[in-house]
Amino acid sequence: MKIESVDFFYLSMPEVLDIGDGSQDALLVRIRAGGYEGWGECEASPLTSIASYVCPMSHSACKPLRYSIEGKNIDGAEDIQRISDAVHENSLDLLQADHTLSGIDIALWDLLGKKMNEPVYRLLGYQKKFPKLPYASQLFGENAEETFTKAKATNAAGYKAVKFGWGPFGKSGKENDIAHLMAAREGVGKDAYLMIDAGTVFRENISNAQERLSALNDINAYWFEEPFINGALDAYKKLSTSHPKIPIAGGEGCNNFVQAQAMINYAGLDFIQIDAGRIGGISVAKRVADLAASKKIIYVNHTFTSHLALSASLQSYSGMEKHFISEYPVELKSLAREIGKEQILPDTNGYIHTPDRPGLGITVDTAAIRKYLVDVEIKVKGEKIYYTPEI
Amino acid sequence: MKIESVDFFYLSMPEVLDIGDGSQDALLVRIRAGGYEGWGECEASPLTSIASYVCPMSHSACKPLRYSIEGKNIDGAEDIQRISDAVHENSLDLLQADHTLSGIDIALWDLLGKKMNEPVYRLLGYQKKFPKLPYASQLFGENAEETFTKAKATNAAGYKAVKFGWGPFGKSGKENDIAHLMAAREGVGKDAYLMIDAGTVFRENISNAQERLSALNDINAYWFEEPFINGALDAYKKLSTSHPKIPIAGGEGCNNFVQAQAMINYAGLDFIQIDAGRIGGISVAKRVADLAASKKIIYVNHTFTSHLALSASLQSYSGMEKHFISEYPVELKSLAREIGKEQILPDTNGYIHTPDRPGLGITVDTAAIRKYLVDVEIKVKGEKIYYTPEI
Repeated sequence: MKIESVDFFYLSMPEVLDIGDGSQDALLVRIRAGGYEGWGECEASPLTSIASYVCPMSHSACKPLRYSIEGKNIDGAEDIQRISDAVHENSLDLLQADHTLSGIDIALWDLLGKKMNEPVYRLLGYQKKFPKLPYASQLFGENAEETFTKAKATNAAGYKAVKFGWGPFGKSGKENDIAHLMAAREGVGKDAYLMIDAGTVFRENISNAQERLSALNDINAYWFEEPFINGALDAYKKLSTSHPKIPIAGGEGCNNFVQAQAMINYAGLDFIQIDAGRIGGISVAKRVADLAASKKIIYVNHTFTSHLALSASLQSYSGMEKHFISEYPVELKSLAREIGKEQILPDTNGYIHTPDRPGLGITVDTAAIRKYLVDVEIKVKGEKIYYTPEI
Repeated sequence: MKIESVDFFYLSMPEVLDIGDGSQDALLVRIRAGGYEGWGECEASPLTSIASYVCPMSHSACKPLRYSIEGKNIDGAEDIQRISDAVHENSLDLLQADHTLSGIDIALWDLLGKKMNEPVYRLLGYQKKFPKLPYASQLFGENAEETFTKAKATNAAGYKAVKFGWGPFGKSGKENDIAHLMAAREGVGKDAYLMIDAGTVFRENISNAQERLSALNDINAYWFEEPFINGALDAYKKLSTSHPKIPIAGGEGCNNFVQAQAMINYAGLDFIQIDAGRIGGISVAKRVADLAASKKIIYVNHTFTSHLALSASLQSYSGMEKHFISEYPVELKSLAREIGKEQILPDTNGYIHTPDRPGLGITVDTAAIRKYLVDVEIKVKGEKIYYTPEI
């Protein structure tokens, strides 16, 4: 069947706050072919990604994404691969391309799953899926007391794994960080998995990160995430071999396979975290998951947005039993909560499950999200090359 | 002095062809402060980069670039560094940001040079500059005869170094490539430096690249450039240790320092090629040049656009005597030729020189380029957030 339409929808909360909460806006992609409809989500700047889809060609290796997608055939997994390859070739020099491709690739898998009446993870070759332990992913409080209160509430809600990140961490001195770390452990209790996410705050500065290792050891941190910017291989490697030894996690900033490969091969990571909404979609995420498994590194999804994005991120490693943990956003803004009619909720044992419905198994609630639609219009040489489509 | 205005100008040839010629459009940046004016150029998709400059904030680490620049102070080199750092922090999750920052950083150096009445290379700490041997950079012909004709013409024009790339190379079998390679050598004569640029055509496929090594050896290729996509460290490393040994060049796709660092440390490169218009500007390019020198790898500019971009790319390694070679585009479209009132031309010995005028030493010919201006308008929620400014 031929791809008939590719539509981008920019959604936003009425007010976007200057905090590390990626659920305040969203960019959805709807692809229609042969009477089916697939949906995907880019974890990306919406306006910039839309521009990359519709921009005029600059030269043979800097074409808009639409060039590689519209009117193409989509009958099987190999067609998705062909489209992904075409984007990488035709939009090689368009930096934003991978973020935009991500939502497109996800929507194509959703579409194909619906057509073949199979969940995506089965189309990826997994015979069965395994439950994942969700870690409640949230921002640090503004002060240690607030972090404690949040940690206690998350524990009371039944989560066995909790992550705190961003916010004040790394910005007001070591003592302040230690207070947050101790508050977090005290709040979640001694048995919970507790992860700490530095949100790249130390950039490439190894000693600033090393100074936190003792405190991370004291609170028995399950991992220390993104102390440095993505791709700072030497800094990661040095930290991973420092004492006390704390497992290191990273990789959410990777926007293609070879970047993730470099992080796996050279950064000394224990956990590689991949956002299907950034790395080029489910196709590339699956390739990274396979590599991680072969290198004995634990694959974890990165997801801080909707359950549509969560389902997309789960598919690529659903069938990998040892890779048992999953980022689970617990502070979603209403926009992100309302995107899917179905939610992926922990069962009575506290585990989550990849949906067993066709495609991603999440029905986009077009009526609910209409109120978040951002009206956009882009004109080039007097011609309207993008305007917000009917949802 | 305070930054008063930052203006983006999208220029394009009336018709953009589907060929690997990056000089068919351009994105110029003009920054004004304290009565001075600086100009820069992004080697990037113009519309997408403009969108990244003006887009609404998504969250604390996905802000538009304007947030980190407008109204900020610019009195010395440390202010440029501060702005660059701010963009990297505030636009961490905005993939296009580095390409957009590149033009901004270049314009800030030009502005500062004009204010301090010094060429940029001196502001970077170089006491003197060294001549560079320009290699005439051009596309392969459509067939071997055409490649021969182009090579002969380039030789007749006096170039001692010539590069052919892209086009048919790697796309129609090994024999066709060999015919092009032999034609190129025959045309340029036996004494010229001859470089071959595969334009990432083999993606991650090592054996396809290895199959060309003998022919590259036969024509005494000075380097083999970008056989693989940027960041494919393992593929580069394996090729660099294959026989016959051909020096490997790469890196033009790097959009930040740590990517270039990884290519230098793990890819087995002999030459690292950096485009100041992509990697984040002159500031980041200089950092890579210093690292390359310390690792005994030759630094080379990547430039396929205007002489404004060429001057920007030269500044970062102007003072490095051993890094003596420079990419020099010889097939510029009229748009790219007309951007600068001054040209950087080979002297009687065939060498080029970084301009000694203040800033980048290139005066943008606003009257000449007006005819190439592309009219753009971006509206979000009914508000015009970008329209083509007066040039």
